[in-house]
Amino acid sequence: MTEAEFLAALRGLPLHPGALMLRDDAARLGTLVLTTDTLVEGAHFLAGDPPEDVAWKLLATNLSDLAAKGAVPVGVLLNYPLRDDGWDARFLHGLSAALTTFATPILGGDTVSLPAHAPRVLTLTAIGESAHAPVRSTARAGDALYVTGTIGDAGAGLAIAHGAEGTAELLAAYRRPWPRLVEGQALAPLAHAMMDVSDGLLIDAERMAAASGVGVTIDLARVPLSPAYRAFAGDDRTARLAAATAGDDYEMLFAAADGLALPCPATRIGGFTPGAGLTLVDNGTPLPLPRRLGYQHG
Amino acid sequence: MTEAEFLAALRGLPLHPGALMLRDDAARLGTLVLTTDTLVEGAHFLAGDPPEDVAWKLLATNLSDLAAKGAVPVGVLLNYPLRDDGWDARFLHGLSAALTTFATPILGGDTVSLPAHAPRVLTLTAIGESAHAPVRSTARAGDALYVTGTIGDAGAGLAIAHGAEGTAELLAAYRRPWPRLVEGQALAPLAHAMMDVSDGLLIDAERMAAASGVGVTIDLARVPLSPAYRAFAGDDRTARLAAATAGDDYEMLFAAADGLALPCPATRIGGFTPGAGLTLVDNGTPLPLPRRLGYQHG
Repeated sequence: MTEAEFLAALRGLPLHPGALMLRDDAARLGTLVLTTDTLVEGAHFLAGDPPEDVAWKLLATNLSDLAAKGAVPVGVLLNYPLRDDGWDARFLHGLSAALTTFATPILGGDTVSLPAHAPRVLTLTAIGESAHAPVRSTARAGDALYVTGTIGDAGAGLAIAHGAEGTAELLAAYRRPWPRLVEGQALAPLAHAMMDVSDGLLIDAERMAAASGVGVTIDLARVPLSPAYRAFAGDDRTARLAAATAGDDYEMLFAAADGLALPCPATRIGGFTPGAGLTLVDNGTPLPLPRRLGYQHG
Repeated sequence: MTEAEFLAALRGLPLHPGALMLRDDAARLGTLVLTTDTLVEGAHFLAGDPPEDVAWKLLATNLSDLAAKGAVPVGVLLNYPLRDDGWDARFLHGLSAALTTFATPILGGDTVSLPAHAPRVLTLTAIGESAHAPVRSTARAGDALYVTGTIGDAGAGLAIAHGAEGTAELLAAYRRPWPRLVEGQALAPLAHAMMDVSDGLLIDAERMAAASGVGVTIDLARVPLSPAYRAFAGDDRTARLAAATAGDDYEMLFAAADGLALPCPATRIGGFTPGAGLTLVDNGTPLPLPRRLGYQHG
């Protein structure tokens, strides 16, 4: 089955109301927020990636889902495949650094043994607490669309991990993403809708608009690029499209009333309109959509 | 690393108080109880096992951990490896039956794609609610040791799954265990310590005693066997030792004041004493311990 078919079938099973029809990145249980991610070696990370970074990214991507709910991390459960080859100790080293950095304790988990030929499969479940957890489906026509930080650095980092020339700063953006917990907590009470940018700015914005039953327009010229990204890829339309479709940014993407005073830095990159679909402009000039808006699952 | 080494290392990382030092089968978060299990194809189930039964067992073993905390299931998260070969639809069929049977809704999860050669790795996290969650570490010298149901049926079922002649009833005990949710909820307020029998009656009782800092004596003659088990394996000392070390029973094993009126059927199979270790007797006659008390992890 494809992911879409599997999710459709799951929606026919008994669902908790907090599952939000499996249409969001996190579930809700009272004021708790729960999210879980599985990483597969060879798909979500490479066999040669430093285990410390795999651990960091496993925690950081889950905490990013909590951040999009304005949640404070409460604890994590880790499902870990043991193998006696030095990887485990290095993984724990990276996990320790990440847990300490983001003040997140371990609540529990499970270990299994995997045969030597099997790809590692790692699961982490993160639990957070949030009094005002926004969803992705309540953006309103007339809202502005904002994003925190800069876009495209992780995509450049992935190219560097694959052998391109580039800076350690960009590589770190890919391997050690920084979940926007502080920003998420500050924005949650005022965002009409919020999610993290994981699959690509364009595809994630389109998903927010579709879930909300509105259209969204993004001005490519307003997409915030870092100096490091511009030095790596340039600043032309091609470079901007690459940044906006690369994914792995883990920035907060949110809808809020236009002109609102924001509690943290963010860039207004577009806005929501009546209707449907994604419209792309470059400094006001309409652009055709690229064939690929970001990472599409199964 | 071995499981013991990995757990020791994890205890050096930031731990939530509700993690209970990673020495129990479930974590606590207020009145919530959380438990998670990962099943690996080839280790925890066989490639030829019916996918419907794998789904049932994945849910049932997690719910058994909730049962030992006296918890009512609240919801589950499923981390599922998609593969396009008909297994997925059959898995969902079994999951649906189990979720409905145990009134447990889906809260969320994640899907990944696994390469065709990789063993399936399935994770389920179950969340329950319990006002009086017993731990395994507070049995007291003088307490009686009780177990619900019968012991050994699943071990016989495993032998049947491997080709031995036997009944569908015993095979079902192995493939479709029944979590003792009702019994666990009734027993939790009065049990001094409680856990489920997953690795074997003897090894699990020894672990409860060790965690509680007391000794435990079990009378093999009192271990409850089903008529189906006796028809399959007999009723002599060898058959009783096989039952008491087989595991996968998912019955409630608990310490409670001797002579207490119990709210559900259970058999008094022994008692706790000052000191340490497991003592085995057969109708009062001391027996040497078998070399293998049950399933030992990594």
